Amino acid sequence: MTTDLIAALREDLPAHVLVTDADIAASYARDMAGLCAAGNPAVVVLAETTEQVRHVMRVATRLRVPVVPQGARTGLSGGANAVDGCIVLSLVRMNRILRVDPVDRVAVVEPGVVNADLSKATAEFGLVYPPDPSSWETCTIGGNIGTGAGGLCCVKYGVTAEYVLGLEVVLADGRVLHTGRQTAKGVAGYDLTRLFVGAEGTLGVVTRATLALRPTPPPALVTVAQFADTASAARAVAAIMAAGHTPSLMELMDRTTLRAVNALAAMGLPEHSAALLLIAVDTPEPAAELAAIEAICTGAGAFEAFTAEDAEDSAMFMQARRLALPALERLGTSMIDDVAVPRSRLGDMLDGVAAIAERHDTVIGVCAHAGDGNTHPIVIFDATDPAAVERAGVAFDAIMRLGLDLGGTITGEHGVGTLKREWLAEELGPVGVEVQRGVKAAFDPLGILNPGKVV
Amino acid sequence: MTTDLIAALREDLPAHVLVTDADIAASYARDMAGLCAAGNPAVVVLAETTEQVRHVMRVATRLRVPVVPQGARTGLSGGANAVDGCIVLSLVRMNRILRVDPVDRVAVVEPGVVNADLSKATAEFGLVYPPDPSSWETCTIGGNIGTGAGGLCCVKYGVTAEYVLGLEVVLADGRVLHTGRQTAKGVAGYDLTRLFVGAEGTLGVVTRATLALRPTPPPALVTVAQFADTASAARAVAAIMAAGHTPSLMELMDRTTLRAVNALAAMGLPEHSAALLLIAVDTPEPAAELAAIEAICTGAGAFEAFTAEDAEDSAMFMQARRLALPALERLGTSMIDDVAVPRSRLGDMLDGVAAIAERHDTVIGVCAHAGDGNTHPIVIFDATDPAAVERAGVAFDAIMRLGLDLGGTITGEHGVGTLKREWLAEELGPVGVEVQRGVKAAFDPLGILNPGKVV
Repeated sequence: MTTDLIAALREDLPAHVLVTDADIAASYARDMAGLCAAGNPAVVVLAETTEQVRHVMRVATRLRVPVVPQGARTGLSGGANAVDGCIVLSLVRMNRILRVDPVDRVAVVEPGVVNADLSKATAEFGLVYPPDPSSWETCTIGGNIGTGAGGLCCVKYGVTAEYVLGLEVVLADGRVLHTGRQTAKGVAGYDLTRLFVGAEGTLGVVTRATLALRPTPPPALVTVAQFADTASAARAVAAIMAAGHTPSLMELMDRTTLRAVNALAAMGLPEHSAALLLIAVDTPEPAAELAAIEAICTGAGAFEAFTAEDAEDSAMFMQARRLALPALERLGTSMIDDVAVPRSRLGDMLDGVAAIAERHDTVIGVCAHAGDGNTHPIVIFDATDPAAVERAGVAFDAIMRLGLDLGGTITGEHGVGTLKREWLAEELGPVGVEVQRGVKAAFDPLGILNPGKVV
Repeated sequence: MTTDLIAALREDLPAHVLVTDADIAASYARDMAGLCAAGNPAVVVLAETTEQVRHVMRVATRLRVPVVPQGARTGLSGGANAVDGCIVLSLVRMNRILRVDPVDRVAVVEPGVVNADLSKATAEFGLVYPPDPSSWETCTIGGNIGTGAGGLCCVKYGVTAEYVLGLEVVLADGRVLHTGRQTAKGVAGYDLTRLFVGAEGTLGVVTRATLALRPTPPPALVTVAQFADTASAARAVAAIMAAGHTPSLMELMDRTTLRAVNALAAMGLPEHSAALLLIAVDTPEPAAELAAIEAICTGAGAFEAFTAEDAEDSAMFMQARRLALPALERLGTSMIDDVAVPRSRLGDMLDGVAAIAERHDTVIGVCAHAGDGNTHPIVIFDATDPAAVERAGVAFDAIMRLGLDLGGTITGEHGVGTLKREWLAEELGPVGVEVQRGVKAAFDPLGILNPGKVV
């Protein structure tokens, strides 16, 4: 079977894009969701052109072989994990930035472009591509589109989906579909663009994207507020939004996270806070708005609130926030939840997570895109202790149950992958699942595109 | 047949929601696209609840009767026009605003809520629902969602699609689907919400929507710039955007439009301008930015540029712009095009439309959401003169051809309806049409939902 497959791929692919060595191919088996199952790929294709992707899909359709599209494999839900006998279709070599236009404020890129490289290329035009997932220095735009990635800026600037104007997509049978537009507006036909964003490669393979850009904002200034309990911090977040402010970032770190970041990088973060809020404003004159925000924090119970001296000082605090995930991961084996709740329920979510940690005798560090109501409770455990593993799994699930009960979603920005597939049905309900499966079948009747992911 | 249909509807609907009188029913036959064909409805249902909508769809499925969903019928593409023997399903009575939440910055509404009524309800919270189509005082949110409506604010605030977070939709067979979310972020499963926005009721009937709100911006201040030719005005638009400004509105009126507005309302607009640009900024301190914009306009060739004295003065100019369409419609019978091109091609679009007007000896007035590259060339003709009607039709089509050749779309914000259905295939290409039909079939296998619209 594998021999036939590789022979068929070779018909129209140059040798240097094929990885047939089993050990090397196996190194492409998974993304960064350590605990998700992954199979062994039959072959890896490092595609360089849309035509090569089309050939892969035609062969896959002919031979009924599953195809797992991959970017930089920085995903956190197993969405890029191989299944046994599949073709791993890596897009990382399709990494050209084809156009940056300052009048139309768009970039046209291939999927393998690294998020940070796009930012560098647009900076000279005074433009920025806002979505900035934690992995922005290594993750690819194609992966961002596949997972519907978020980041730190979303409270003001929104998520990946809001920046994808149009796509070139290779369909399951090798046809090429162009969706969306190069224009600021457009309502010609169904909006298929958004269907592919967050679809984890289960509906088609994105080979080109037209992205919206924004003028680069001034450097942000950050207010830091410390709270003796997370409920007060959540109250501050709600009051800031209700007062009509639009911070460019509003992040929360709990004590476990603060300690972990200090342990990793000696940042000198205040560990006597139960919760630290970072609130950035990136308008030309942020001082007055930050003073108002400081006052709101104090009114909500902050025992200390101050504004950083300058943009450099502010950037240091944001860097500390960016270290939260790697810092927590050093404490043990970890499972990262990604529950988003309505902003008004953030306090209930944080209290609930603390109760779950206590009930299941498990360490859970929380950092959160507080302005989005998007929490990342990180369940930490000793993988060599079966009882701890068991408790961690129960806690992980309890967090998602809590999120749904609070009117939230099981995934704000990391995607479903294999990690949360059973929970997706819970969130969508039976009609939702039926309809989503109908959409999947319309695009991929043979079920060869990234099987086992999403629905 | 009609007797069976009405009997079946009566099984579960109160008498007062049914309009069976043929003359009254006929008054629901069409939206504001005067020249699009419309059939005679068999019956009109003025639904008051989701359950009633479900009953209508179940009956329609059982009896294979087409259903045409309607809002306020202010659409401009025939998307709400009846087909012979259909059930017109009007949602205007489902007009409750169920929730406005200033912390989550969302509103939950029924589809019959009038756009302006939502703005009034959110104002007391210091919030605004930005999309503001010209018909905002009468059009409904459901209609806005169905058509993917735009408006004057889109250059800064975007279109309807960007404000729809989640939907309750009654499917063709009467099942209820919940899409999207109540949260700021969410990537659980395929993004079906956006599929329904702009679908003109061909995939399902929207019965509830969760909408994003924004803090009400300060009143805008407007700069007015006059140009001796439209190409210079387009150059100014490009230069303003390339310089990194973010106007809250950037509108263009050509001389035909200026004259028509003056004739309607004696606004005293300068008719010696070939093109007038209105550029608004709604930041707290707009003076410096508007001064820079004035200078850019002068540099691009404006023979006069000035900034309005205050917000009231500014509002007068915006009111003049809002009169453009009714003013042009008084000049004769009209067909409104809605071509959006990349902003950088606006000058080519305007020059091309002028050439088309001359070539086909037809009056075409142009107003444009210039900042979006979204032009509304309005073809005006004498409907009693067959030769003029013929020339107008040719000109109308030539404008869409030009838009596509410039990398644009046949509809920026009005929708496809019946008016542009043939042109849609031209824009989407054969694969696009196949895929869109596949999506339609997945949602509406019997083809009973608003047949003949979109694909």
